[in-house]
Amino acid sequence: MLSIEKYQEEFVGFLGKYPTPKDPETLYAPIQYILNLGGKRLRPVLTLMAAHIFSNDYKKALNAALSVEVFHNFSLVHDDIMDDAPLRRGQQTVHEKWDVNTGILSGDAMLIMAYQLFENYNAQTFQALAKLFSKTALQVCEGQQYDVDFENRNDVTIAEYLKMIEYKTAVLVGAALKMGAIVANTSEEDQNNIYEFGKNLGIAFQLQDDYLDAFGNPETFGKQVGGDIIENKKTYLYLKALEFSNENDRLKLKNLFSNSDASENKVESVKQIFKASGSAEATKKAIEDYTKKAFLVLETLHISDDKKALLKNFGNNLMNRTV
Amino acid sequence: MLSIEKYQEEFVGFLGKYPTPKDPETLYAPIQYILNLGGKRLRPVLTLMAAHIFSNDYKKALNAALSVEVFHNFSLVHDDIMDDAPLRRGQQTVHEKWDVNTGILSGDAMLIMAYQLFENYNAQTFQALAKLFSKTALQVCEGQQYDVDFENRNDVTIAEYLKMIEYKTAVLVGAALKMGAIVANTSEEDQNNIYEFGKNLGIAFQLQDDYLDAFGNPETFGKQVGGDIIENKKTYLYLKALEFSNENDRLKLKNLFSNSDASENKVESVKQIFKASGSAEATKKAIEDYTKKAFLVLETLHISDDKKALLKNFGNNLMNRTV
Repeated sequence: MLSIEKYQEEFVGFLGKYPTPKDPETLYAPIQYILNLGGKRLRPVLTLMAAHIFSNDYKKALNAALSVEVFHNFSLVHDDIMDDAPLRRGQQTVHEKWDVNTGILSGDAMLIMAYQLFENYNAQTFQALAKLFSKTALQVCEGQQYDVDFENRNDVTIAEYLKMIEYKTAVLVGAALKMGAIVANTSEEDQNNIYEFGKNLGIAFQLQDDYLDAFGNPETFGKQVGGDIIENKKTYLYLKALEFSNENDRLKLKNLFSNSDASENKVESVKQIFKASGSAEATKKAIEDYTKKAFLVLETLHISDDKKALLKNFGNNLMNRTV
Repeated sequence: MLSIEKYQEEFVGFLGKYPTPKDPETLYAPIQYILNLGGKRLRPVLTLMAAHIFSNDYKKALNAALSVEVFHNFSLVHDDIMDDAPLRRGQQTVHEKWDVNTGILSGDAMLIMAYQLFENYNAQTFQALAKLFSKTALQVCEGQQYDVDFENRNDVTIAEYLKMIEYKTAVLVGAALKMGAIVANTSEEDQNNIYEFGKNLGIAFQLQDDYLDAFGNPETFGKQVGGDIIENKKTYLYLKALEFSNENDRLKLKNLFSNSDASENKVESVKQIFKASGSAEATKKAIEDYTKKAFLVLETLHISDDKKALLKNFGNNLMNRTV
């Protein structure tokens, strides 16, 4: 097995040689642009790691890893249009640098190109990868749709919220790992369990993202702390606070979330309720529970303890945000 | 073999039972809406016909036929956003009835669902269908991009224009037929030749569309006659007219195409140049040539004369716009 940095390096080298067509330039230049904006490449690294854990040759998973990354970037391009986001990784988004039509069409092309990368495998593997990919991709679309729908609803339940983040974020983490396991031709049992490991870790990661958005260190979090509160996002913290608060605080919280106030004052008042209600603690507990659940599934895999330790290490690094 | 109407009927019945998920309703209702707007279902009919020509069981091609139709409708939803089109088949477009974000996301889901329909076939057939599908879908994106690019260019060549309509329209006609041939497990030679038949017929059809847009009968054409001229579209007629005209008419034509004049007067002046330059005749000749080319490839297929006659009949009906 290699270090995470080594898998990253290997993947970035492979990405650099990805032969996208030149023509029409207006279709393919935005694709090269978004794919080369950087990022930690966590999903493709997971695909390579999983392949390496179940076989000696992790390099044969490079095309599957690239497919995951191309799909992820497709979803970023289309989501950025829907969210009207001007920046991505500190650079202009595709629809800002070009225009919305370019973003739509280049995104469409990327979704197709992600499937094409499976053509490097034999028919059985191709079908297994493409089936998993389609199921996952459709769930990601559904998750995005739920996220959009929830903005206009005031009756979102915790269960619905968890399903939304599972679909929008976590299933792709699970699928990235399972694709590596498929390429390595491991048992279905191990394929499914490594998927569950990734999915639960993905949910924990997203809940932690919610938590850090309110209580993170502005120096290290990377995004604007309090951003979700300013945008009135109905996160786990918010929904739990509504559940736990007394009538008074519940009304106050709903009131704070009913206007476009972006003041430091609002952020502090909301955080106060998150803490006083016990929601902050409950969220930390949920993060811990999903992380534990992930590590418990890990134990069932038919791999050496060394390899389990490696995945666990990745999980811990991810939850401590050092990768 | 059955009549075209019978294949249409069979397909529409199958489409009616297409089990799309219910939830999230905001994602799937637009998909049911666009798929049920009607239309002649020519592409899926071609898939069924091709399967029937090369095997006894055309019904096993129903999933492939549906995939072609779902993809075609995906491209309509996204193209209508890009073209800012309010109407499709006389009804509101998806982004008009819902909004642009819904159009983007429902379209994405349809592209994925088109791939999922291949999961009903064994691994070998799945891979063959998905490979052809990806190649074709990417060409359709490229064709759409060329079409967009050409709006802002004044140096489009006839060869570039032909490539654009080949990619944007004709390759899907070829692929629809080839998918039927793949499902029927026929020889690669016949698969490729029936593709070429469809592709050439598709180019002929699109050139005829250009021609009828200027010279068609307003009673039967279905779209506004003169629409391309009002929109200053650089069609085959326009490009050939530039090539054949004297300096005087060339300047006049360029001038007519440089403003947003939508008068009957403009339409008549342009049509006059199309005729005087010989462009109208040259376009009719090109339509004839591509149709002949299609029928010539047809002769090479290893099928009975009856079946050749059937495909020829479909081609003639299409070019006479009776299907």
